[in-house]
Amino acid sequence: MKVYKYGGSSVSDIEKIQNISKHLKEVSKNEKIIVVVSAMGKTTNNLIEKANMITTNPNVRELDRLMSIGEIETISLLSIALNNIGVKAISLTADQISIKTTGEHTKSRIKSIDKNILEKFLEENDVLVVAGFQGINDKNEMTTLGRGGSDTTAVALASVFSVDCHIYTDVDGIYTIDPRVYENAKKIDVISYDEMMELAYLGAGVMEARAVELGYKYLVDIYVEKSLSDVKGTLITSKEKIMEEKEITGISINNNTLMVTIDNIATYAKNLEPIFSMASSLGISIDIISHNDVVSDNGSIAFIVPRTDLNLVNTLFSNLNLKNSNVILNEKISKVSLVGIGMVNRVGIMSKIFKILADNNLSFHQISSSELSISIVVEESNAKTLSKLLAKEFNL
Amino acid sequence: MKVYKYGGSSVSDIEKIQNISKHLKEVSKNEKIIVVVSAMGKTTNNLIEKANMITTNPNVRELDRLMSIGEIETISLLSIALNNIGVKAISLTADQISIKTTGEHTKSRIKSIDKNILEKFLEENDVLVVAGFQGINDKNEMTTLGRGGSDTTAVALASVFSVDCHIYTDVDGIYTIDPRVYENAKKIDVISYDEMMELAYLGAGVMEARAVELGYKYLVDIYVEKSLSDVKGTLITSKEKIMEEKEITGISINNNTLMVTIDNIATYAKNLEPIFSMASSLGISIDIISHNDVVSDNGSIAFIVPRTDLNLVNTLFSNLNLKNSNVILNEKISKVSLVGIGMVNRVGIMSKIFKILADNNLSFHQISSSELSISIVVEESNAKTLSKLLAKEFNL
Repeated sequence: MKVYKYGGSSVSDIEKIQNISKHLKEVSKNEKIIVVVSAMGKTTNNLIEKANMITTNPNVRELDRLMSIGEIETISLLSIALNNIGVKAISLTADQISIKTTGEHTKSRIKSIDKNILEKFLEENDVLVVAGFQGINDKNEMTTLGRGGSDTTAVALASVFSVDCHIYTDVDGIYTIDPRVYENAKKIDVISYDEMMELAYLGAGVMEARAVELGYKYLVDIYVEKSLSDVKGTLITSKEKIMEEKEITGISINNNTLMVTIDNIATYAKNLEPIFSMASSLGISIDIISHNDVVSDNGSIAFIVPRTDLNLVNTLFSNLNLKNSNVILNEKISKVSLVGIGMVNRVGIMSKIFKILADNNLSFHQISSSELSISIVVEESNAKTLSKLLAKEFNL
Repeated sequence: MKVYKYGGSSVSDIEKIQNISKHLKEVSKNEKIIVVVSAMGKTTNNLIEKANMITTNPNVRELDRLMSIGEIETISLLSIALNNIGVKAISLTADQISIKTTGEHTKSRIKSIDKNILEKFLEENDVLVVAGFQGINDKNEMTTLGRGGSDTTAVALASVFSVDCHIYTDVDGIYTIDPRVYENAKKIDVISYDEMMELAYLGAGVMEARAVELGYKYLVDIYVEKSLSDVKGTLITSKEKIMEEKEITGISINNNTLMVTIDNIATYAKNLEPIFSMASSLGISIDIISHNDVVSDNGSIAFIVPRTDLNLVNTLFSNLNLKNSNVILNEKISKVSLVGIGMVNRVGIMSKIFKILADNNLSFHQISSSELSISIVVEESNAKTLSKLLAKEFNL
């Protein structure tokens, strides 16, 4: 048995759905398949747009119910296509196979899936077509799983049966760096869960961090591959299975970055605490914080937030009313990150980065490092140049 | 408490949904409302079209799941609009309030609805927004209720609480005859269940016969009214409540009519039986059957079927292989029907009909009568003329 997942661009029209059904017919001759699908193309965005015509702040219970129908459309159509060519297939929504979630609307996590029900359906069918991105809470309400939710559904189903999970997408694997940025980018054959989570968290678009995290927890081998292609993709697995370790695994560029600088502010902890506690209560996720070394009455502090939180940041500062300080928002910022296991333990990487910055006259705003990554915050206009130079330097 | 139902044309865009939400806000100040909605505009047709791009004969379980999502879209959006203007409202799908059906796909009937669950939701909310047209079967699969299914959902909900049901549509009531055919058509203030069922069965488009039948069974007063209008509509109720009885209540024109004539056929019952039993097994619903009086080896027989069953009729005759007979299909046929309680008991109506046909040189193919109606099968080109003459004669 295997679990397959097809994303929105792989099922964006009826012809693509029919092509997938033919492929599934072939593979289902040898083994049972659970296939998870996303909504067709831009369907979910279109539904959200309708809600936003009413209000930009819709009731989240109802928004979840609305957003869930795109996947139901796809499972019905794919099941119609499969049955039409003689495959025993059945569509299943979250309530039908009891995909239970933690319950928060628009960002639930999967708590459990009923294996017995799935086994019963697998006895009677060759292909189960499951709606991704959705689950039900304890009140039997529809909840959605947030960005990349269908990947999470697929990995969760694979974990139930301890089988491999194949994520089919419109690219043929995970690359060391976005090939649109650096044409010599190399495809990664195998990558550890840790590195992939870090890459995903730092903005590499192909997989969402939560799905990888779930794979990590239940040790599900995740293959990222191109739909209907024989090209070998990328395997995400535990680091114990990876023989050869590379210094640097990949580079991500994250443009969803906004730099907030507050000048002329008292930088004692008690003065800064209200800013970050209010930001937290507004749901703003704060990344790298830096302030000049000397704590003083008129110091300066800077931090990074997602650019998509701009409205929340404006709310934050109108609530705080920092009368004597200057707040500067810089939206033309990018975060370039190098990811690799044990990178920080190897000498010379940071110095190589500084040499590249200096030799090419690239100024930076912030640099931070963690066990798995080094991130450099630069002007957005310099992000691609820097990424290419790093990719060349580290042979990615 | 009341039950409201808004049809597809009343919720065809976001603005209309918002207007309905404002109206519901006003009325929900005085009483609790259960509102049933259809899919937005042509949504269901568009979904069926997608399925038909795959096959004209889709798996009915999957087709039902597909067709059900239009209503889920509407309930979510209407609930978002209601909550946005401060109304305590909640969207509910068939599984959430246990609308159980008989189970056949695409044409289920409602078996039961869980009153306790509804009461619980009514305690916590002022408006319940229920998806029409859908129910779940014993296997927890989505099933749909066939044409006019949302009306049936509304009447069933009204019957659970023994309250009135208001069907809001784009016309302001039931007319004695389609106003597009006869501009002096009169609106009917009150009509009995029997007459309305007969009118609906004979093709008057506003209400489906099954919803009226359910109202009849549980004595639900059904008001057919125009959305967001103060104009008084039509009340459908039991005949005991109707004081003044009219000779003729209304006229319907049904163009979904195909006349099949078989010439040169043995018209003994044993020869005809295979035709009608095979038609029945193909699901062709046969209306008025007529044959010339003398049963003979080379007689002739004619009957009426829905024009939409043309493909099935062709299948019927290719299966039957009536080698010596001529089969003539006439698609340019209409059935004009007069409806009224106890009509057949009053003398003179049939003779008036014949006088009109004769005076105006209108030929007819068949005439049939039942307790509640007289139907005249004529050329489609004559249907409107005949209807107008009848409307004038019977002061409709």
